[in-house]
Amino acid sequence: MAEHFADRLADAVARCRSPAVVGIDPVLEKLPDELRPADLTVETVAAALERFSMEVVEIAGGRVAAVKINAAFFEACYDRGLGAYYRVVRRAHERGLLVIGDIKRGDIGSTAALYARGHLEPPRYAGIDPACIPDAVTLHGYLGAGCVEPFILAARQAGRGVYVLVRPSDPGADEVHEFGAGPRLYEHMAALVDRWGSASNLVGKCGLSCVGAVVAPKGTASTEALRRRMPRTPWLVPGYGAQGAEAEACRACFLPGGGGAVINASRSVIYAFDEPAYRARHGPDWRACIRAACDEFARDAARMQSGRPHGPAC
Amino acid sequence: MAEHFADRLADAVARCRSPAVVGIDPVLEKLPDELRPADLTVETVAAALERFSMEVVEIAGGRVAAVKINAAFFEACYDRGLGAYYRVVRRAHERGLLVIGDIKRGDIGSTAALYARGHLEPPRYAGIDPACIPDAVTLHGYLGAGCVEPFILAARQAGRGVYVLVRPSDPGADEVHEFGAGPRLYEHMAALVDRWGSASNLVGKCGLSCVGAVVAPKGTASTEALRRRMPRTPWLVPGYGAQGAEAEACRACFLPGGGGAVINASRSVIYAFDEPAYRARHGPDWRACIRAACDEFARDAARMQSGRPHGPAC
Repeated sequence: MAEHFADRLADAVARCRSPAVVGIDPVLEKLPDELRPADLTVETVAAALERFSMEVVEIAGGRVAAVKINAAFFEACYDRGLGAYYRVVRRAHERGLLVIGDIKRGDIGSTAALYARGHLEPPRYAGIDPACIPDAVTLHGYLGAGCVEPFILAARQAGRGVYVLVRPSDPGADEVHEFGAGPRLYEHMAALVDRWGSASNLVGKCGLSCVGAVVAPKGTASTEALRRRMPRTPWLVPGYGAQGAEAEACRACFLPGGGGAVINASRSVIYAFDEPAYRARHGPDWRACIRAACDEFARDAARMQSGRPHGPAC
Repeated sequence: MAEHFADRLADAVARCRSPAVVGIDPVLEKLPDELRPADLTVETVAAALERFSMEVVEIAGGRVAAVKINAAFFEACYDRGLGAYYRVVRRAHERGLLVIGDIKRGDIGSTAALYARGHLEPPRYAGIDPACIPDAVTLHGYLGAGCVEPFILAARQAGRGVYVLVRPSDPGADEVHEFGAGPRLYEHMAALVDRWGSASNLVGKCGLSCVGAVVAPKGTASTEALRRRMPRTPWLVPGYGAQGAEAEACRACFLPGGGGAVINASRSVIYAFDEPAYRARHGPDWRACIRAACDEFARDAARMQSGRPHGPAC
């Protein structure tokens, strides 16, 4: 039995002294000029997205515990892009990073088993490197336990994890989540996800389950209440930086003692070279801008976790 | 401006005299013996799934209006599988079928735009045949309007459609949908989807929107109530056959006059050669079994739509 995902993640966070996770969301229009192909074809664009992502992985390795790679940005180049996604996952593993595949899949049980086969299980057939498969994936829970069970089985057997979408960062999501007189949808989903992950064989030595939740912090009190409902659920907290999550609410995502959550920032790190503040310091050296933003983010995340500043030191 | 998706679908249904949609869910373990590769690699398995799917498309063309191709089954073979998915979409178009890409994606707005680029928009770059892109896709609405808007924009501009998940067929989904004292989650989502698709520039000549819903019929009265809440929303009704949707409840999915819904069957048609009843009639000829099951399903669906039996005649 492979080591439990939550334990592996807790170790990596301790080693880096930061719960920061860098999100890899490559978009052609935002790439550094030198990486943009002159001739735009599916092949050249996919190759450019891959090259940029590899550079981000190179920088993130040694600075943060994990990267979150969003499949959407790769699928914009169809199967050519998805091939690049798997290669970026492998490179991140080679750089010693844990990898969260941000795939947000969700289908009924019999079909979910096939998604689990392609996105979380160790490969059954020759022809793909096992290192191309991420350590955890994000999932929709709208269709019920059936759509996460095949993933939970793979997670338990292979020391991997899942993060079920609970509370979205999009302000527009309120109209979905706030209706009726009873609990909000995200509160209800939080209770379900806690239950889905509660079996003792799903919980690691650190006390956390391999069934996690994606929770955007919206206000400190509401986040604290949600945290109390999910005492053993590891959180993936999106949206620090570009999506506007506040530091105070991010702090409420951690369990007493500082464990239980990782904080994700994507655009504010990987496109730091577009920010005047970074440009002023590093000029046209886009890698230096990303490095600096990555270090700052790792420090910010460490401060949220502990209340005390740390330097990252993977 | 391309012709509206709902009008194109209504025309195809009228031409075939049936609202049947065949679902293509290829699984290695269920393929006819002659298509199973001796040596299992990602390449050989993806090729086998593709070959079987092409055979199903060949049979479905001329018998039904549309096929629904579920990406999960292809993604089980990683990017090699996704490449096969796009080629099956293209072949279905060549056979005169409309294609629903059952991708069940759902991410926040800025990311959803990238999913829309890869799965619904006409291609921006050379290197992929525009015929590889489906006419409609299925989506999650959990993250709010933002996650469907980029798809709706593409749908409006290119004469395509979306189907947002409203009511799941999985019995296990009840624990997600039934909580609190107010409306059920699927009722609330139904009202939202109806609203998202209500702008006049989204509604076709047939009076239906390009924003549809995936609705599993569970009981006639409840299905009728849901139908009244969504007077202009085209429905994709999953689960006829293997998932156990009843004919009576399926009937309630149609609007007065018989429009507004297509009925999907997957396993009961494409794996008909595993059923003793078909084997008794057609022996080991698996194509003949699928053909017979497809014809029967098309007749059943026509009967649900109109109350009167029709023969399919695309």
